[in-house]
Amino acid sequence: MESVKPMKADEKLVVGAIRSLVIDQINKANSGHPGMALDAAPAMLALFRDHLVSDPEHPEWVSRDRIVFSSGHASALLYSMLHLAGYGVSMDDLKSFRQLHSKTPGHPEVGVTPGVDAGGGPLGQGIAQGVGMAIAERAVAASYPDGAEIMDHYTYVLCGDGCLEEGISQEAISLAGHLKLNKLIMFYDENGSTLDGPTSDSLTEDAKTRFLAAEWEVIDVKDGNSVSAISKAIAKAKQSTAFPTVIIIHTTIGYGSQNAGSCKTHGSPLGVEDGQYAKKQYGYEYPEFTVPQEVYDCFAESFKARGAKAYAAYMDRQAAYAKAHPEEFQLFLDSFKKDLGGRRIDWSGVEIKEKDATRNSSGKCLAALHAAFPFAFGGSADVAGSTKTDVKGVTAFSRANPSGKDVRWGIREFGMAGAMNGILLHGGLLAYGACFFVFADYCKPAIRMAALQNLPAIYLFTHDSLAVGEDGPTHQPIEHLAMLRAMPNVTVYRPADMKETQGAYDAALAHRNGPSAIILSRQNLPTLEKSDRALVEYGAYEVYGEGKADLEIIATGSEVGLAIDAAKLLKEKSINVKVISMPSMERFLAQPADYQKKVLSLPREKRISLEMGATFGWGDLTAFHIGVDRFGESGPCNAVLAEFGFTPEAVAEKVANFYAQK
Amino acid sequence: MESVKPMKADEKLVVGAIRSLVIDQINKANSGHPGMALDAAPAMLALFRDHLVSDPEHPEWVSRDRIVFSSGHASALLYSMLHLAGYGVSMDDLKSFRQLHSKTPGHPEVGVTPGVDAGGGPLGQGIAQGVGMAIAERAVAASYPDGAEIMDHYTYVLCGDGCLEEGISQEAISLAGHLKLNKLIMFYDENGSTLDGPTSDSLTEDAKTRFLAAEWEVIDVKDGNSVSAISKAIAKAKQSTAFPTVIIIHTTIGYGSQNAGSCKTHGSPLGVEDGQYAKKQYGYEYPEFTVPQEVYDCFAESFKARGAKAYAAYMDRQAAYAKAHPEEFQLFLDSFKKDLGGRRIDWSGVEIKEKDATRNSSGKCLAALHAAFPFAFGGSADVAGSTKTDVKGVTAFSRANPSGKDVRWGIREFGMAGAMNGILLHGGLLAYGACFFVFADYCKPAIRMAALQNLPAIYLFTHDSLAVGEDGPTHQPIEHLAMLRAMPNVTVYRPADMKETQGAYDAALAHRNGPSAIILSRQNLPTLEKSDRALVEYGAYEVYGEGKADLEIIATGSEVGLAIDAAKLLKEKSINVKVISMPSMERFLAQPADYQKKVLSLPREKRISLEMGATFGWGDLTAFHIGVDRFGESGPCNAVLAEFGFTPEAVAEKVANFYAQK
Repeated sequence: MESVKPMKADEKLVVGAIRSLVIDQINKANSGHPGMALDAAPAMLALFRDHLVSDPEHPEWVSRDRIVFSSGHASALLYSMLHLAGYGVSMDDLKSFRQLHSKTPGHPEVGVTPGVDAGGGPLGQGIAQGVGMAIAERAVAASYPDGAEIMDHYTYVLCGDGCLEEGISQEAISLAGHLKLNKLIMFYDENGSTLDGPTSDSLTEDAKTRFLAAEWEVIDVKDGNSVSAISKAIAKAKQSTAFPTVIIIHTTIGYGSQNAGSCKTHGSPLGVEDGQYAKKQYGYEYPEFTVPQEVYDCFAESFKARGAKAYAAYMDRQAAYAKAHPEEFQLFLDSFKKDLGGRRIDWSGVEIKEKDATRNSSGKCLAALHAAFPFAFGGSADVAGSTKTDVKGVTAFSRANPSGKDVRWGIREFGMAGAMNGILLHGGLLAYGACFFVFADYCKPAIRMAALQNLPAIYLFTHDSLAVGEDGPTHQPIEHLAMLRAMPNVTVYRPADMKETQGAYDAALAHRNGPSAIILSRQNLPTLEKSDRALVEYGAYEVYGEGKADLEIIATGSEVGLAIDAAKLLKEKSINVKVISMPSMERFLAQPADYQKKVLSLPREKRISLEMGATFGWGDLTAFHIGVDRFGESGPCNAVLAEFGFTPEAVAEKVANFYAQK
Repeated sequence: MESVKPMKADEKLVVGAIRSLVIDQINKANSGHPGMALDAAPAMLALFRDHLVSDPEHPEWVSRDRIVFSSGHASALLYSMLHLAGYGVSMDDLKSFRQLHSKTPGHPEVGVTPGVDAGGGPLGQGIAQGVGMAIAERAVAASYPDGAEIMDHYTYVLCGDGCLEEGISQEAISLAGHLKLNKLIMFYDENGSTLDGPTSDSLTEDAKTRFLAAEWEVIDVKDGNSVSAISKAIAKAKQSTAFPTVIIIHTTIGYGSQNAGSCKTHGSPLGVEDGQYAKKQYGYEYPEFTVPQEVYDCFAESFKARGAKAYAAYMDRQAAYAKAHPEEFQLFLDSFKKDLGGRRIDWSGVEIKEKDATRNSSGKCLAALHAAFPFAFGGSADVAGSTKTDVKGVTAFSRANPSGKDVRWGIREFGMAGAMNGILLHGGLLAYGACFFVFADYCKPAIRMAALQNLPAIYLFTHDSLAVGEDGPTHQPIEHLAMLRAMPNVTVYRPADMKETQGAYDAALAHRNGPSAIILSRQNLPTLEKSDRALVEYGAYEVYGEGKADLEIIATGSEVGLAIDAAKLLKEKSINVKVISMPSMERFLAQPADYQKKVLSLPREKRISLEMGATFGWGDLTAFHIGVDRFGESGPCNAVLAEFGFTPEAVAEKVANFYAQK
């Protein structure tokens, strides 16, 4: 245990101040969740006062300890801590809790509040984010000679029953135990209540045994109000060399309130009267939003002093490191930059075959990515062979091989996508993850958190259509392109061949303010004559046609070649069709109007979409859609495609009929 | 343990026949997953021969034992069993494995293959479906006096590592333990391999301890080839009176193959040579797709005889029950019918307030639903108070109160939606489930399985827009309407007031070939003068306007009243706007063209959509969209709405500008 500095203020006063600020924020906003925010205050004091290593003067310091509020609804507690600990969160900010454009929104948001390391709200995902951060800490440290000199910290997660009932928690816990992430320390605030009632209404499992099964250390703290007991538990957890640790802290929800112990305190403000009652229980006798100097001093003398000292020591080590390992240090710096130091993939040696599945093309792109970016880091949810993430020479990341860059996520798509968010919040790695496209469904809630947090996750979703064939409707994506396109700040790429696949990788690396999903075929596709890597960036361009067109077909991915074949058949019928490849609808819609008009020269009434997926969402661009608005069927690929009309002949006939009606 | 009849054929021959049929199916299709399908054959023989109570002559018998292949990729094993056991699966069907329109698709599909109780494929969901079935068995039995006379069976689930790594498994396992579903028996085929390699690459947790933590009985079978050991384990599991049971069966993936024990057998056909090698290991000396009569006799004398006897006994009990409890029996019969016996909700006593949140309206509708349907059964994922599923007089379903109809799902949205599928596959209950709309993301993979299996799940998704307010962007749905609308066979309803909420309930009860999602507001909405319960069924209708319209606004839910207010402002500017309420886009698009033209009389160029969500997907209907294509913000509801332009003035201005450009 680290030595605890003597304090001017006693613990009771400091805990009272934290809790009173929680009450005041929520009461003023008349909105918020006091329950856990009140009961978990002693744990946060133990963490901040005695252990957390972070410097409020440098909240972006890459080697700081990370803290994730997986229970994001306890945000008022986090803001109270950040205020008292000296981050850029003022008393006025606390008074603006949950107000528009404040630094103190309803749930923690990265980039809005200094000191917030992770967004929270959707339960369970914070645990996966914490696991991702702990993975990143180890992977980054192991990537460089003497890497622990420049990357060495703990990751702390606060969660409750809600997070642990969500399935993603098990994926994350199981993975953390498997990887033996010993620098991950989780607080399980066991306060005995969910929103609807006592936890026992819906949960009877033995948490301790569950964690032991996943190979975690478990420390039980019986008295959730004992700052020293919690502090001792943290000290012990930090000593773990082989296992992540969960500290189960038994608390009383809404501690101090007249309704303490009841779910009534979970999601409703205490109100003035009960707030005053609670403050009396805490022995806290100051007016609203008032904190005596001794409380600030407590944090200044413990947390702030420790952080400033640690930061200075780190900067010294870093300077020495820069001298000893100049090249590696530059790489390390680049890995944390938004533009990745301006690095780009070198495509010159990458073979372009006459035909290939774009999943295979993607596998080759990944090899080129790893060659260009030593800090590329990713893998798949147990479909490496199918999604082609098993890049030659890239070894598996494991406890025994922490410098490995291939993550074996297991059959945990949601956990993978959630942990990728943690990796990207942490920084220092270029993260990608792969699974079958239909299982983008499992990832979706985490993709949303990536988009919301502006994280440049790269998803490789293969097996992208009915052409999956025999595996049938459960494995044939239909609505998934629409699902991703409808989401703000996600860019979807569906390349038609190797050249466009390379272009999709380039574009994903160029646009790093949100996630990119690259959608790839299982089946072989021809390399197109006029496809163009450089034009993927613009979202759409002409790949077939000459002279004045009667119609325009917009196609994506595997259907671009099909559209060209159909257009050739239609030419024999004297219908002149131009084919537009649209690898990215989002990128195209982001272009200036004149570019859009150049590519789509005919009016909407003469435009047709061709895509082996839901037609939903094409209406702004095209008047006639050829797609799939029902579930698929099990059968060999070509039989299924014929059944659903994805042959040159069937497409040509539909287009000709549409043209005849014009 | 049930007495095992003496067999003409010995076990070795029967197991060899099962495994050989697996090999032959997959080899002929040149597609499929032999791994677990081979190694789990002894377990399935133990189950079918000695325990499973089902009658192939009456595969829809409501009180039969259920069996769920959560590992749906082991479908070839299931089809082999169904063929040998006498279901309507012929040898020719096995020869058509994975072919278009066959009875033997790549993954099990309900309604396609007699004897298939549940669809499978997306890993983990089968466990939740099994839990749902076990819940349904208990709930139905408890709903009637002496209900065990007409509903009494076990539910069996087969799963592997993949299912158990998926997070939904934990939600389902935790819930099953909490509810003490003692008639749920799960086989965990522990074959030591996933698709990518040995299970130990991604999983080190102790399964036994994990299940014990969740209060399951655990039985370990060391020799996965010992039919008698597995049979004894099942017999023991059936004796459990207080806990669900998992039987962990240690097997060798791809048993018999030259690659047995390796992930190579997971997803690739053995091929002819290795297939012959394997059959030699089994001592099975018959040509392809050939089974000696003794094997059929084995099933006829055990499984079929037991099933026929049990079915006959059941029909006798049922006849007696019908005499003793005629009214209850009629209700029981109705509960299993697609049309629910023609029952309808009586709305006559339901108050319509001047204004109310549609979530409150929904709560009153639920009360009326329970009054009309004694077998209505549902609840929420720990947001009963917020989603208004806490219906007065409806008690919580629990071990102690199995006739309760309010399910406390806990914070397990995906598990809830997955278990609802199991409940609906089982039959006998009208299932609904509720959570905040943004967490439809967590449910999405299970909603897809509902849609694919034509299950009439009713989802109540409240807190449906930016108007959630303070909870901020993580809790404000944006793309979720588009996500659900893009999915085949899902019908989305977004009612504007109490009358339309009632209409949505009526429509959901009328269209029971797929799931319905009813999307509800957190905030109060005015009851509209011309809103009409009966017209919800048609998807859209005029709610405001007179004379010749200059423009048409199509609005949904909370934006219908807003559209009317904006139209009134526009009238002052001499712009005559008609307002169409569109509670269901899907229902509207299902109407005949003349109805559609009657409602939307202006051309697309003069139509505007107004919906507080992604504009993606409106392009087929409207040329100008007023919506939200970025993430929301935390703040009081009205401040957020003003920020995003959802006020009568801001909407009127946008519409006027659009009109001026025409």
